[in-house]
Amino acid sequence: MAPAVNLTPKTRGRLTASLPEDRLAELRSLLDTRRKGFSLEAPFYTDPAVFTADMEGIFGNHWVFAASVAEVPEPGDYVTVDYGPYSLIVLRNDDGGINVLHNVCRHRGARVLTEDSGTTGNLVCQYHSWTYNAEGTLIHASAPGEADFAKGCYNLKRAHSREVAGLIFVCLADEPPEDFDEVAKIFEPYLGPHELAKTKVAYQQNIVEEGNWKLVMENNRECYHCDGHPELACSLFPTWGLTDGIIPNHLEDVWQRNLNAQDALEERCRRYGLPYEVVEELDTRIAGIRISRESLDGAGESFSATGRRLSKKLLGDLRDFRLGRCSMHLQPNSWFHFLSDHVITFSAFPINEHQTLVRTTWLVADDAVEGVDYDLDELTHTWKQTNLQDKNFVELCQRGAASPAYESGPYMKSEYQVEAFISWYVARMQEHMA
Amino acid sequence: MAPAVNLTPKTRGRLTASLPEDRLAELRSLLDTRRKGFSLEAPFYTDPAVFTADMEGIFGNHWVFAASVAEVPEPGDYVTVDYGPYSLIVLRNDDGGINVLHNVCRHRGARVLTEDSGTTGNLVCQYHSWTYNAEGTLIHASAPGEADFAKGCYNLKRAHSREVAGLIFVCLADEPPEDFDEVAKIFEPYLGPHELAKTKVAYQQNIVEEGNWKLVMENNRECYHCDGHPELACSLFPTWGLTDGIIPNHLEDVWQRNLNAQDALEERCRRYGLPYEVVEELDTRIAGIRISRESLDGAGESFSATGRRLSKKLLGDLRDFRLGRCSMHLQPNSWFHFLSDHVITFSAFPINEHQTLVRTTWLVADDAVEGVDYDLDELTHTWKQTNLQDKNFVELCQRGAASPAYESGPYMKSEYQVEAFISWYVARMQEHMA
Amino acid sequence: MAPAVNLTPKTRGRLTASLPEDRLAELRSLLDTRRKGFSLEAPFYTDPAVFTADMEGIFGNHWVFAASVAEVPEPGDYVTVDYGPYSLIVLRNDDGGINVLHNVCRHRGARVLTEDSGTTGNLVCQYHSWTYNAEGTLIHASAPGEADFAKGCYNLKRAHSREVAGLIFVCLADEPPEDFDEVAKIFEPYLGPHELAKTKVAYQQNIVEEGNWKLVMENNRECYHCDGHPELACSLFPTWGLTDGIIPNHLEDVWQRNLNAQDALEERCRRYGLPYEVVEELDTRIAGIRISRESLDGAGESFSATGRRLSKKLLGDLRDFRLGRCSMHLQPNSWFHFLSDHVITFSAFPINEHQTLVRTTWLVADDAVEGVDYDLDELTHTWKQTNLQDKNFVELCQRGAASPAYESGPYMKSEYQVEAFISWYVARMQEHMA
Repeated sequence: MAPAVNLTPKTRGRLTASLPEDRLAELRSLLDTRRKGFSLEAPFYTDPAVFTADMEGIFGNHWVFAASVAEVPEPGDYVTVDYGPYSLIVLRNDDGGINVLHNVCRHRGARVLTEDSGTTGNLVCQYHSWTYNAEGTLIHASAPGEADFAKGCYNLKRAHSREVAGLIFVCLADEPPEDFDEVAKIFEPYLGPHELAKTKVAYQQNIVEEGNWKLVMENNRECYHCDGHPELACSLFPTWGLTDGIIPNHLEDVWQRNLNAQDALEERCRRYGLPYEVVEELDTRIAGIRISRESLDGAGESFSATGRRLSKKLLGDLRDFRLGRCSMHLQPNSWFHFLSDHVITFSAFPINEHQTLVRTTWLVADDAVEGVDYDLDELTHTWKQTNLQDKNFVELCQRGAASPAYESGPYMKSEYQVEAFISWYVARMQEHMA
Repeated sequence: MAPAVNLTPKTRGRLTASLPEDRLAELRSLLDTRRKGFSLEAPFYTDPAVFTADMEGIFGNHWVFAASVAEVPEPGDYVTVDYGPYSLIVLRNDDGGINVLHNVCRHRGARVLTEDSGTTGNLVCQYHSWTYNAEGTLIHASAPGEADFAKGCYNLKRAHSREVAGLIFVCLADEPPEDFDEVAKIFEPYLGPHELAKTKVAYQQNIVEEGNWKLVMENNRECYHCDGHPELACSLFPTWGLTDGIIPNHLEDVWQRNLNAQDALEERCRRYGLPYEVVEELDTRIAGIRISRESLDGAGESFSATGRRLSKKLLGDLRDFRLGRCSMHLQPNSWFHFLSDHVITFSAFPINEHQTLVRTTWLVADDAVEGVDYDLDELTHTWKQTNLQDKNFVELCQRGAASPAYESGPYMKSEYQVEAFISWYVARMQEHMA
Repeated sequence: MAPAVNLTPKTRGRLTASLPEDRLAELRSLLDTRRKGFSLEAPFYTDPAVFTADMEGIFGNHWVFAASVAEVPEPGDYVTVDYGPYSLIVLRNDDGGINVLHNVCRHRGARVLTEDSGTTGNLVCQYHSWTYNAEGTLIHASAPGEADFAKGCYNLKRAHSREVAGLIFVCLADEPPEDFDEVAKIFEPYLGPHELAKTKVAYQQNIVEEGNWKLVMENNRECYHCDGHPELACSLFPTWGLTDGIIPNHLEDVWQRNLNAQDALEERCRRYGLPYEVVEELDTRIAGIRISRESLDGAGESFSATGRRLSKKLLGDLRDFRLGRCSMHLQPNSWFHFLSDHVITFSAFPINEHQTLVRTTWLVADDAVEGVDYDLDELTHTWKQTNLQDKNFVELCQRGAASPAYESGPYMKSEYQVEAFISWYVARMQEHMA
C-alpha cells in the first residue's frame, strides 16, 4: 500500500454540504422506505442531488477499480481516471508502486495531465510550469521573487491505492474501509495464475451510456435479459443466475450441458490447483464481491462463436485452454472475466445522474502478436456487441424512469444479484447519510 | 370511451410535490397577480418549476389531442406520443377501440415500444420480454421459477381516451373533466362530414421549436403577425381576428372580399347542410374551443397560392370544393383545418420549459394517389413555410423573455384569442394550485 | 453622455431576488472569508447562483466596454451585445451620439434586431412590425382599432452609454458609478492620439471559452504563463508584471533589453508629447484601471515576429512607428492594445457560469488597404494564436475547479494584477450584497 501523504480532505459531507437539509431528509426517507426485492424509486436514477450523494457516499468512500497493471507497466506510465466530479492520475512510480494523485494543480487549479494515458517523468502543469514529482511533491514553481514560497504546502493531493493480482484500486476516503484486505485474500488465488503483469492491452473501449450508473450495474448483474445477447450466448451459458428447480423448459438442454461442462471444468481445476468455488458476499460486506470459475459452452475456451480460443497464447503459467471463465463482480462499479487466453476488465465511471462511461479493456499475453496470435476484431467482437446491446437496455430504463408513470418493479429470482447490488447500495448509503 | 382499468395514479401533486413550498407560493402569487390583457411574466416562459406545474395542472388534467384515426386505422396500429415527462402508446385494439398505455414496463421501467409508430400484436418489452396484450395486461413474464408471481399486479398503466369525429384525445387525470362531452357534441357536426376514417396520412412533420409551449400557442392564436406569412396570406384572409370597425385602411379591400366570400360560403353551407357558425368558448369552459367554417381567398378551395384545390379527391361525401376551411382551436395544445380536399392537424407537445415539439399532419382521401391526385410538395408547401416562420417568431420571444428587461406587454384587440388562451391557462392553473 | 430616458428598472435585487436567502447568505460568507492573495473558492467559478449574482452586482452596476466607434461609424449603424441574460443594441443615432437599447420588444418580448451588426433606420420588430425610432420611441404599432393605445408607455428600455476616445461603454444601473468621469480623464490623453474615429475594423473574432468569466480575466492579468505564448513573446517582453529584484536568471537579458527599449520609448514619447507613465488603480476605485505605454521587443513597432509594423499606415497624427504598445486594463471585463499601426480591443462577455464569449477586434487606419497596406493573416496571427492558448489555459482551470480536490491556491508576486482583479471583484460584490 502506497504511503498516503497529504490525503484528500474528509469526504463525508464535502459534497452533500451543498444540498439543502430537506433534500437530504428526503433522500434518507427514500432509503429507509426502499421496498426489498423491487427496483429503486425514480429519483435514484434521475435526481442530481442523489447523484451528488452517491459520489460522496459510494465513490468517495469505497475502493474503486481504476486500471490494471497492463495499463501502467513501467515507471512513469500513467492513466487519468475521471468519475463524478473527480479527476485522478494513476501513476507507476520509480519504486514500482502506484501513486494516485488528484489531477488539480495547487496553484490555480488547472488540470495537470490532459491526456487519457501516457508516460511522464515529473508532472508539469501546462499553465505556469509548476512541477511535481511522481509522489506529487511540488519541486519547482519557477515563481520570480518567491524565495520564501512554502513549496511544501502545495503538493498534489493524494488518494489511497492498492494493487492486487494486477488490478489497481483507488479509495478517496481518509480512512478506507478495512475489509478490502480480506477481499483481496479471497480473489488473489483465483486471478493470480493469469499473471496480469505479463499481459498487455490489446484494446480499450470507452462508451458513454445515457443512463445512471446504477442502471448500468443492475444490467450487469443478471442474465435474465441474455436473449438480447445472441453473440454472447454462444459461449456464456444463458442459464447464468438460475438454480436447480427454476430452469425453464426451453433451457433444460442448456442447463444439462452446463452441468456437465461445469463438472469437467472443476475436474480440470482440481488437477491444476485452480480454485473454482463460488464465493458470494455481494451485500454482506463493505467490499461486496462474487467470484467463481464457471464453464463456457462449446469448446469451453473463450468468448467466441464456437467457444474456441481467441488468442493462441496462454496467460501466465496456465497449461490448458479449457478453463472457462473466472468471473468476478465487485461493488460498486466493476466486473471481470479472466480466461485462459485473455482477460476483460469492465468499469462503470459515473459522469452525472444520467450518463455513465463504461470502460472495457481486453488484455492478452504480452508476447501475443496481433494478426498472428490473435485477430483484434475477433477478440473484441462478442463483448463489443454485448456492450452495445446493454447500452440500449440501460438507456430504455433511464428514459422510462423519467416518466411519472414509472413505479418500482419486482426483481425476479434470476435477478437476485441485482437485488444484492441494490441492497448493498442502500445499506452503504444509509450508513453514510446517518 | 375505453374502460379505464388500472389508471395512472392521482396526478394532483404528483409532479409539483418535488417543488419547495416557497416556489409554489411564488407561482400562485404570479398567477393571482397576472395583469389582464398582458402577456405573462417571464418565469411562465423560462422557469423549469412552472413547466413542472404546467405538466401537472394542464397536461396532466385536460384532454389532449394525440393523433387522428388515419394514424392508427387498423387493430394493432399504434403511435407513441411524448409530452413533458410522459410517454404514451396510443393503440387501436381488436375491438376497434383505442387504448392508451403508459410506455413504461412494470418490471424494470424500460420503454416498451421504441418506434414513433408501427403495428404490433402483443407488446413485448425488449429487455426481459415481458409481454402485454393490447389492453396492457401482463400475459407473460417468462421468469424462471416464478409460478407464484402475481402477474395481475403488473399491467401497463392506462389513461383515458376518446375518439370523436376521427380525432383521438387522451386524458391522464383519474377523473377527466366532464365538459368534454358537451364540446364533442359541438364540433362533431362540423368535422364529421370530412370523414377522417376515410383519409390517410399524406405527410407528417415534427419540428422542435426552441420556445415554451405557451409561446407556441400564443403565436397560433392571432393573425396580427400574418404579414410574416406571405404564402399563407394567398388563401387565408389576413383580416382573421379582426372585426368591423377596426379594419385598417390597407386591408379594406381584403375585408370586403372576405365578407363577400363568406356570404357565398355560408349560402353553400346551407345548401349542403354544413354548419358554419362561430362557436367560441375559449376561456368560458374547461375544454376551451373555437370552431367555425370560414371562407378562403381566391378560388376559395384550399391553402394554395391561387386558393385552388391541392388534392383532386373530395373528402367524405362532400360535393363541392369551395368549402373554405373549417377551423378549430382547442385548449390546451391543438388546432385544425378541415378543407374539402385535405385536413391538417397540429399539436404542440411540450418537451421542457424552452422546447416544444410541433407535429403537423396532412390527411387526404384514402383513395387519393400521390403524383396523380395530389403533389406532396404542393400539398404541404404553405404550412411548411408557415410553420418555419412561426418557429422563428416563437424563438425570438423565448430569447427575449430571458432578458431581465422583458416586461409583460399589452395584447391588441386582434390578439383577443391570445388573451383567451392566457386567461384560460391562468384560471385552470389557479384552480389546480388552489 | 446620452440622455437616459426610460431606464432599465433598478437592478439591485432584480436577479438575485430569484435566489433563496440561504444561498445569498452562503455567498456573502464566501466573500467575507475570502483569503487574500489566493484564488477564489470553487463556487465562484462553478455555481450558477454566483453567476446570477455576478450579473447583477458586476455587470448590472458597472461600466462595460461594448464596442469601438469603428464598429458603428455612421448614423444607423448598430451592433448587438449580449452578456449574461441581457441583449443590448448599441446604435449610432442621427446626432452622432450613441443610444443603447434593450433588444426586447415591448409588445410580446421578441428580440428586435437579430443580426450581430448592421445598419438600420427605424427598428422594426419582425413579429408584429412594432416600429421604434433610434431613440427607442415606439412610433408605429399598426394595431387595428387601437386608436387609444398609449404608445408612449411602450418605448424600448434604455441604458446609459459613454463614448471616450472612440470607445463605447454601457452601464445598466439606474445610477452609474460616478468615478468613470475621472477614469475617462485618465485614459483619454493616452488613447486620443490614435484617433479611433479614423480607423476601421480589419477583423473581429468571437470565441467561446468553456470557462467562467473571472478565469478569463485572471488569465489576462498576468504574464507568468507567457512561456505558453511563443508568438506573443517575440514582441511582448515576457518580463511583463515583474519588477526589479524578482527577475529570474534566464530573463536577465530580456529584462535589460526591456529597460533599454523602455528608456528609448519614453524619450520618443516626450518628443511627441505622448503620455507613457503607468497609472494603476485596479482595485482602488470603482472603475478600476491600469494604463501605460510600454516598449515592445525587436523593432519595437508591433506584435509581429520581428516587432516590425503590421500595417503600413500610421494611425491618427502619429509620426513614428516605434511607439510600443499603449495598453489598458479595465475592470470588469476588457483590455486594449493601442499601437502605432493598429489597435486591438478585447472584451469578455459572460454567457453562463462556465462559458464566456471573448471578442477580439483588430482596427487599422481607415485608409489602409488590405493586401496592400496590411496582410490580414499577418495582422491577426499573434493574437489569434495567443487567444487559443489562453482559451486552453482557462478551460484547464474550469475543469480543475469542478473537482472537490480543488482548493484556493496562492498568487505569486508576478500575479499581483490577478490579485487586484479578485480583490476588486470581492469588494464590489460585498458592497452590492450588503
